[in-house]
This record gives sequence, structure tokens and C-alpha cells, in this order.
Amino acid sequence: METIKVNIKHAFNRVSERDIEALLPEVLEAKRHLLEGDAAGNDFLGWVNLPEEIDKQELARLKADVARLAEKSRLLVVIGIGGSYLGARMVIEALQSEFASMVRDNQPYIVYAGHTLGEDYYNQLLELLDREDYSVCVISKSGTTTEPAVAFRIVKAHLEKKYGKKAASERIVAITDARRGALHDIAQQEGYPAYVIPDNVGGRFSVLTPVGLFPIAMAGYNIDRLLQGARDMRSICHGNNTLEENPALMYAAVRNALYRKGTKVEMLVSCQPNLRYLAEWWKQLYGESEGKSHKGLLPHSLSITTDLHSMGQYVQDGERLMMETMLRVRRPNTTVAVPTDEKNLDGINYLTCKSLTEINDCAAEGTIQAHVDGGVPVVELSVDKIDEYTIGQLIYFFEFACGVSGYTLGVNPFDQPGVEAYKRNMFHLLGKPGF
Amino acid sequence: METIKVNIKHAFNRVSERDIEALLPEVLEAKRHLLEGDAAGNDFLGWVNLPEEIDKQELARLKADVARLAEKSRLLVVIGIGGSYLGARMVIEALQSEFASMVRDNQPYIVYAGHTLGEDYYNQLLELLDREDYSVCVISKSGTTTEPAVAFRIVKAHLEKKYGKKAASERIVAITDARRGALHDIAQQEGYPAYVIPDNVGGRFSVLTPVGLFPIAMAGYNIDRLLQGARDMRSICHGNNTLEENPALMYAAVRNALYRKGTKVEMLVSCQPNLRYLAEWWKQLYGESEGKSHKGLLPHSLSITTDLHSMGQYVQDGERLMMETMLRVRRPNTTVAVPTDEKNLDGINYLTCKSLTEINDCAAEGTIQAHVDGGVPVVELSVDKIDEYTIGQLIYFFEFACGVSGYTLGVNPFDQPGVEAYKRNMFHLLGKPGF
Repeated sequence: METIKVNIKHAFNRVSERDIEALLPEVLEAKRHLLEGDAAGNDFLGWVNLPEEIDKQELARLKADVARLAEKSRLLVVIGIGGSYLGARMVIEALQSEFASMVRDNQPYIVYAGHTLGEDYYNQLLELLDREDYSVCVISKSGTTTEPAVAFRIVKAHLEKKYGKKAASERIVAITDARRGALHDIAQQEGYPAYVIPDNVGGRFSVLTPVGLFPIAMAGYNIDRLLQGARDMRSICHGNNTLEENPALMYAAVRNALYRKGTKVEMLVSCQPNLRYLAEWWKQLYGESEGKSHKGLLPHSLSITTDLHSMGQYVQDGERLMMETMLRVRRPNTTVAVPTDEKNLDGINYLTCKSLTEINDCAAEGTIQAHVDGGVPVVELSVDKIDEYTIGQLIYFFEFACGVSGYTLGVNPFDQPGVEAYKRNMFHLLGKPGF
Repeated sequence: METIKVNIKHAFNRVSERDIEALLPEVLEAKRHLLEGDAAGNDFLGWVNLPEEIDKQELARLKADVARLAEKSRLLVVIGIGGSYLGARMVIEALQSEFASMVRDNQPYIVYAGHTLGEDYYNQLLELLDREDYSVCVISKSGTTTEPAVAFRIVKAHLEKKYGKKAASERIVAITDARRGALHDIAQQEGYPAYVIPDNVGGRFSVLTPVGLFPIAMAGYNIDRLLQGARDMRSICHGNNTLEENPALMYAAVRNALYRKGTKVEMLVSCQPNLRYLAEWWKQLYGESEGKSHKGLLPHSLSITTDLHSMGQYVQDGERLMMETMLRVRRPNTTVAVPTDEKNLDGINYLTCKSLTEINDCAAEGTIQAHVDGGVPVVELSVDKIDEYTIGQLIYFFEFACGVSGYTLGVNPFDQPGVEAYKRNMFHLLGKPGF
């Protein structure tokens, strides 16, 4: 089985192999907490066995709803924020054409709402929804989170005006709590098909529940392969107890070792532009899991070679704060050649025997050398290619490594006490009853 | 005239007003360097008077070329990277509908190339270009930068195959050096209309040259208003010598004061999703200008409220490294109401008397309070609304403040010596002659 490789040798400008190996007892103890559920946050460990335990009947029902809605929809509006948004978007943006909105086949194109309060955004969305047939997938544990609740009211009103109340209710799917909450109650009253966000799975770990699976399937991607990748990575993460054989333990160990040596910022560097939402999903996963008690690596991201021409100078020569975690993809899904040109005015004929991926790889290698020389440690993660299966692997890998890393850091990786602070202030300012 | 306001009072959890005022002599000296050109980097000060000095005849010629190409093109492919990419994209994404690719009027839609080496990206682009009539704007000072040179070969070959060599040459515009370089020579030989990147304007300061103006005009936006905004902001920045009356001096002073008190990271926080490329442009401007000699604030960015649900926990409770610069927009361009719902199951009827912008403003205010309480200083920048005129103001404001800030930091804000390091390694690995 092709799997994720972690190469730590470019991190030795800040930590030694011995520093990293010395963390083995701690990461093994953290791993034990995850498997045995005997540490803080143990009521949110549902994700640990999720790919194994997914209900086959629910999956079949989900696929039937997807088929029913896909047939009558050119668009799916996914309403959600944070963990109810980034997982699906990360997978879809990684797999679809960068120009998918303009090169559409029969599959619905996914648009997003409920992740912003931008007033112009909603007007622009409604202008689009006037023109195309669409359905809605609304995702919220409680149903009362401000952004998705506001968005759902706006979109639902539009949908009911466009299709009538009954037909509209046949174009809505809700993903919410199993038993209670505003969205659960609305779905029951209105007769929307509903799917469950398990109680023991936090938002940022929920992409392999219907929260991610429904939109991903609507976009036309193979969720069975996604789950298979996660399942295979789960076996690797659970079954191996050395850093060499367990990429999640290695990644958790090296980033903690670098943190203990004064590293403050971790940049996830992706070598393909379609991985930018993978970086956004990763930022929430690691920032929200570890950024507490004034601890944790600050998540940042770069896309290369694009951002070498904007942030490259700072990484090379600015304050020495960061490490990079570079996500490399060994093979493209398609090929394109650099055309030859007899005159060679641009001087790049020396490239015409090479594929773009070879050139991009040399850029990545050159970047690693340059940044290491500049004092930035680089951890390399590599996968064979980008498809449903490898993304499933990446999801489980990053989740498991995050749990291990958070416990190794000495925090509860599964709460997010700081997220409420701005909301309390906002509710007070908005005059919400009780605030 | 409505202008940019800088509010520093939420930064007083890390610096005092006196700390900031104490920097006045230094920022005035830095300003003098910019106006008199007597410090390092003074051969790259062309941007300082650019909005005043733009050639009216060149502008008229540019508009005529735009009109000619727009008539026969559904798409414009803009080929460029770094400063030859981010400025145009920042303005266009701020002004167009978020769904512009699907809600197209008669104006060409802009797509980008040459900013990546992703192999799948180019295949996906070619698939799109098979389907739609298009033109090309290729932007490169030298014409030999790897990414745009490769992209131009690929796209040019496609264009010539689609339209024939002669008709293709009538669909290409080059923006390049006035006298020399590969792209200059290709344009001359092939008879492409060409526009000049002035020798004394660096890439990251070039958005108000044809580098930005051509794509922005092709997208249908009013470049005269953009230039007028920049011109008016130039008057403010040049004419005022107090922090209170000169927003660029104030911004430069407060961020340097915060840096001297140990701040390591500056997050540009935008309150509307369409400003995400403004943040990318800003990252290059500040990161590349200041990130040298192991100095400078590391640029980072957030979009709220979206990223409060991903990065909010870290900002509230993680390592205390950062300041925030929050860019607020007082008025939306359009309005949308929160629909009422008698049953109020989602409990948000208390919001139905408010506009989305009011709710978003309360979120921003609540965020400022929460982050200040958490030990993060917040500098507020506010503009009246987002249109060509205010974006022109923002461009000049950020550029002038950047020059002032860089000199105050003690670096040459106009070079980028660290950008070459990875390229040398890459050329060696690629076997480029001479490396």
C-alpha cells in the first residue's frame, strides 16, 4: 500500500534525531490516551474509530438522497462554518478542476454559505440562485450558530419562493444532532431528510461523518474510496509503535521537538494550488486543538511556487520563528508538456524535455535547500498522488497526529474554550436575550 | 473626502500612546527618504509619484486595446507571478461577484496562469480554453522567470492552434520592460501591443502601472477612479506630518512600536470575504519589503467571521506572538434582510431588525474586545466602502506606509535579496546552462 512518508532529515538544522527519538515515550503515551480514552477530552474520541464504524445503511440512504438531489440540481448550497464547512471544501477543491464552475459536467457544483456574514456575498449568491436549479445541505449541530442560521433563513426563503414550500422541502437535507436542537426540530417539522453529527465527534474531526460525506458525494466523488483511505491509515496509526513505521507519531514527535526548541510558527506548504483548502482545514485542526494555555505552534500556510514570489523573502531572511511542513505529491493526475520553441528567446528550451511536475519538484527541492540554509527546518510529507483514497489517508493521518501532538504538548486537544469569547461580546452587542 | 481611518486605541494593551508618538521623528525621517530619494533602494521609488505621473496617452491606448480584446473574448488569461499577479487579482476579486465565473455579463472573466507549476492546473485551464474565446495578457519584466515563461509557451501554443498564428498575435498583449528582455523581444518580433513596467517600480509596487491596470480594465472596472483614489491618498500621505492627520505614518508608527515590544506576527484581518486577495497582496508588500536581516513582522491573514471558527481559538489563547490589523468596511454595496420566522425555532428573530452588516460589525466589535482581553493588540483600519476609488486609496496607503515602515525598521524596503536563493538551487537541479 502506498502511504504517507515523513522525512525529518531537513529538520536537523534545529533538532537532532536524538531530540525527536527522545519523544517516543511521550507520543506513545499520547497514542494510548487516544485508544483507551483515559485523558482529558475523552468524550470527543468518536473520530478515532469512525472509518471502521460507519453505518452501511446510513451510507446507502445518503447515497440515495445524493442521487435524488443531484438529478434536479445544478448547484448544491452547503451551509456551514468551521468544522461544518472546511472538511468538505478541502476534499472537493482538491479533487475538482480549478475551473469547475465553468467546465461543468452533470454533477452539481458546490457553493458555500453560512461561513460569512458579508452582506454583498449573500446578494451575489441570490443572484446566482435566481438563475440555476439548486438544493441545500444545511449543517449545524445546534442550528443556532449565528452565521449558518442567518444563511439558512435567507436561502430557505429564496428556495421556497422559487419552488414553493413543498418542493423546496424536497430540496433540503439537514445534518445535525440526533435528538435535539433547533435544526433537528426544524428538519422534523418540515420533513427534511436528516443525517447525524455524532455527539462524540467535534466539528474539526467531522469530515468523515455526513458533514463531509454528503457534500463530497454530491460533488461526484467516491466516498467509499475516501473512507477506505482513512481506514487503511487508521490501521497504520493504531498498529505501529515506532516513529519510523508510524507517520502520525513521527509528525507529532518532530513538531513537538521543534516547538520545544523555540519554533513558534508552522507553515503548511503545499506544492499544488488545489491543496489550499487542505491548509485551511489543517489550520483549524491544529490551531483549535493546540492553541490554548498560551501554547502551540501558530498555523500558517504557503502554496508554492506561487507564494515563493510573495512570502519567500520573509521565509528566507525574516525573523527566525518558523518551521515548514511541506506536503509533496509525487505524481500529477494528468500531464502537459512544455512546448519547444526554435528561437528560444525566453531561454527555457532546457526545460522542454521535462514535465511540469519535474520542474515543480526541482523548485520544491531548491526551496528546501534554500530554507534549510536560511535556518528554517523543513519536514517533508509526501503522498503518491491526489485522489479520494490518498485524501482519506491524509485526513486520518492529520487527525491522529493532531490528537497525539496535543496530548504531547500537554493540552486537551478536543476542547475550544477560547472560541466563545467573541461570541459572548457579539451577543451582548446584538442585544440577544440573556446576554 | 472619505478616507482611511486608523484607530490605535485597541493596541494600548501592548504599547502606550506615548510609545507610538515617540516614533514620530523616525517615521518623518523615513517619509523624507521616500520623497527625497536619499536612502537605500532609492532607484525603486517610481511608485511614489506614479498616480500623478501616469501617461494619459498610454492610458488611452490601453483602454483602446482593452475594448478591442474585450469584444472578442469571454476570458482573459493573465500570465504573471508575485507582483505581476497579486495586484490585479486583489482589485478584481474585491470588486467582482464571488460567483462571477457563473454570473457573467459581457465583460471578460479573468483567469490566471504563470503563478504556479501545478501540472493538473494547466490541463484544467486548457480544457476551459478549448471551450471559450479568450485573449492573453502576459506580464514579466524579463520574460525569463520560469513560471510565467512556461505558462506563456503552453497558452501561446494553444492560442495559435485555436485561432492560427496571425489571429493569435492579435489576442496577446505584453507588459514588460521598455527596451530589453525576452518578452520585450518576443513582443516586437510577433507584433504584440506592449506596455511598460517602469524600471524604477518594483513588482510589489506595480499595481498602478499597466501590470495591474490592464487586467483590471479588462474585467470592466474603472481605472480612472482607482487612480483618483491613489492620487488623493498620495496628497494625504505627502502633505501631513502628524500621526493623527497622516494614516500611513500612524500605521507605520504603531506596527513598529508593537514590533519593538516583541510582537512577531501581524495578522491582516478582513471583515469581508472578497478582501482575501487584498491580504495576499499585502503579505507580499510587507513580507518582501521588511522580512530581511532576520527582522520584520511575519505577515499572516484572517477573514472574519469565517476564520474565527478555525483560527479563533489560537488567536484567543495560543502563544502571544501577534497583533491584528483589522480592515473594516463601513457600508456594503448592496443590502439583504434576515427573513422573519414566526416559529423562531433557530432563536434568531432578535436579528431580523438588523442588516447583515450590522451583525457583522457586532461580530467585529466583539472580536476586538475578546482579542484585546486575550492580550492581542488590534489596530483598526476603516474605509467607507469597497469600490475602485477606495481600493485606490488603500493601495497607495499601504504602499506609502510600507516604505515608511521599512525605513523605520532599518532595512531597505525595496530589495528582495532572499528571493533568489531557491531559484539558484532550482536552476542547478534543472540543469539550466550556467548553473
